[in-house]
Amino acid sequence: MANPTLLILPGDGIGPEVMAEVRKVVDWFGRNGRPFDVDEDLVGGCAYDAHGQAISDAAMERAQAADAVLLGAVGGPKWDKVPYDARPEAGLLRLRKDLELFANLRPAKCFDALADFSSLKRELVEGLDILIVRELTGGVYFGEPKQITDLGNGQKRAVDTQVYDTFEIERISAVAFELARLRDNRVCSMEKRNVMKSGLLWHDVVEATHAARFADVQLTHMLADAGGMQLVRAPKQFDVIVTDNLFGDMLSDVAAMLTGSLGMLPSASLGAPDPKTGRRKALYEPVHGSAPDIAGQGKANPIACVLSFAMALRYSFDAGAEADRLEAAVEKVLADGLRTADLVGPGGGATVSTSEMGDAIVAAL
Amino acid sequence: MANPTLLILPGDGIGPEVMAEVRKVVDWFGRNGRPFDVDEDLVGGCAYDAHGQAISDAAMERAQAADAVLLGAVGGPKWDKVPYDARPEAGLLRLRKDLELFANLRPAKCFDALADFSSLKRELVEGLDILIVRELTGGVYFGEPKQITDLGNGQKRAVDTQVYDTFEIERISAVAFELARLRDNRVCSMEKRNVMKSGLLWHDVVEATHAARFADVQLTHMLADAGGMQLVRAPKQFDVIVTDNLFGDMLSDVAAMLTGSLGMLPSASLGAPDPKTGRRKALYEPVHGSAPDIAGQGKANPIACVLSFAMALRYSFDAGAEADRLEAAVEKVLADGLRTADLVGPGGGATVSTSEMGDAIVAAL
Ligand SMILES: CC(C)[C@H](C(=O)O)[C@@H](O)C(=O)O
Ligand SMILES: CC(C)[C@H](C(=O)O)[C@@H](O)C(=O)O
Repeated sequence: MANPTLLILPGDGIGPEVMAEVRKVVDWFGRNGRPFDVDEDLVGGCAYDAHGQAISDAAMERAQAADAVLLGAVGGPKWDKVPYDARPEAGLLRLRKDLELFANLRPAKCFDALADFSSLKRELVEGLDILIVRELTGGVYFGEPKQITDLGNGQKRAVDTQVYDTFEIERISAVAFELARLRDNRVCSMEKRNVMKSGLLWHDVVEATHAARFADVQLTHMLADAGGMQLVRAPKQFDVIVTDNLFGDMLSDVAAMLTGSLGMLPSASLGAPDPKTGRRKALYEPVHGSAPDIAGQGKANPIACVLSFAMALRYSFDAGAEADRLEAAVEKVLADGLRTADLVGPGGGATVSTSEMGDAIVAAL
Repeated sequence: MANPTLLILPGDGIGPEVMAEVRKVVDWFGRNGRPFDVDEDLVGGCAYDAHGQAISDAAMERAQAADAVLLGAVGGPKWDKVPYDARPEAGLLRLRKDLELFANLRPAKCFDALADFSSLKRELVEGLDILIVRELTGGVYFGEPKQITDLGNGQKRAVDTQVYDTFEIERISAVAFELARLRDNRVCSMEKRNVMKSGLLWHDVVEATHAARFADVQLTHMLADAGGMQLVRAPKQFDVIVTDNLFGDMLSDVAAMLTGSLGMLPSASLGAPDPKTGRRKALYEPVHGSAPDIAGQGKANPIACVLSFAMALRYSFDAGAEADRLEAAVEKVLADGLRTADLVGPGGGATVSTSEMGDAIVAAL
């Protein structure tokens, strides 16, 4: 049988550095009974520099064909002035949209060894383990019209459109309910139904999906602004949060920052299972950005990207035991006191470079 | 000369209770050389119960005519099933829109005596003093189309529209720059220009307004999701934040929660100055909601509403000295250790009821 395929898109900024460490991990699995056919391509600013597009059609074809895509990060001030449709983010957005990766899973987990890095008091974040399920292919990110028109008189009008259809809300809430069953069995849905019609439909479809297929899961609702407040006040009250694309962007970033471990957080973006093979298209990426200010200095933390590969093992390659093993290796190097530059501070530990951290994880495997 | 007029809309939940304490304060100023003609009316769920509308046309006329409107809070589970256009929030939204109150000022200030209530570590919030300037009459709150259509086949489609014109962004950023000049002279503008065309226009108009009229103010830009993160990580980096209606809703709630003093935070919503008289329409309200769970129990903290009246003194009645005096009275009762139920916890203090707190503030005046 052919090896499963992995398309690696390191991207910009610290993307290539952290991805180099993931390569070491992938290679380790290759030497130990889990070989992958690995391909690499460009996305983001580097793709624009090479092809004038944030992702080339050829790279998109490879992404469509791959069993999983692993992405580093995109963007940086260098590309601030490129045309809107070619900006680095457009590559990421095209991947999400064209692969129909509607379900974005963003775990916000606080690592015990790092709880003191949180700006929140330790007792509020210790043991924190939230999963944010964000809708990723709809809403204001992709709705039309999306345009700026010149009204004359020096006035312009900008329009973005938030659109949601029943089936989009149904499938993302089903994902949230299914994942909740594997956790603490609680889902909190967030929208602004007091102001937005899409919030009203969101609320009603989540309710209906719950009643029809997931009545065993505890469901609550919160307005998204109150949700942001509650995340800051008492984050441990949540298990799974399900929300739309834009609220998910905001709320998952706030939740990620609460953990104090931004450099540690992975994410998965999944499509619907293929009716024949059961396979889902999937893209895995760290929650952090391209951090151009520290790029190329060996300061970046590769763990978020390594853990994104662990999510790939779990969700795309049915290799839960290997994912556990990789996660345990990460826990071990942290427990051993190894820290990249972003993690130096409360608690001490030995400062290591990006590649020393990667080597240590491989050694721990 | 006729007295200035004040329209009081206590609203729902704890609104009437906290407003009763503000009345005591208003009356004190009346006895001491600052008389107001005070009128009262309904808004929110109670207006729906009385008139079938979240605010009656008669109340809107009074609001149009008043020198300032003071609002308590609206909403509660009792009105969860009323028709969308008559929901309690519709009354508040109509006030904002029809009075053209485009500039919403939300100070997020941490009171020293209460810094331990924050979920953040004390050193991160002690002395915190941010002003969020939120655009309040545009964006996705009011843009058309805003509708749910039946597509047949059991599918519905919900649409909300984010619209911004140049002049709307110009005037709100001018307010932010003007207010920054009275503070630390720094403005951070937040949008999602990497995803939204309205974010792109927002960014460019803020830049142009800055260059043309406010080049002396320091201006930075942040993506709104990163802004949410930074608010949680290191809130003291900000002075004035200017942002759109929906991001402002989310970010100001997060910022408010950081202070640990949600029951203490006032807000002001201002219109444009009248070209002839210089007067601006204005509405003042606490940041907290109607808290139906504690309504009628004497547990609510009236300070946010009292400080909203202090903002009215300052911004609508050119009575800065009186505003200072009222704010000092609030500081004094806190320093004396008086605490409503929401403030009991770290630091101790004597628990007082809503009305005892009001009486103490009047006594301190
Ligand atoms: C880079 C950007 C387009 C993206 C988004 O807004 O979705 C990012 O913020 C994220 O959350 O993955
Ligand atoms: C009550 C609601 C309509 C309102 C809003 O969303 O603007 C509230 O959350 C606020 O921030 O004042």
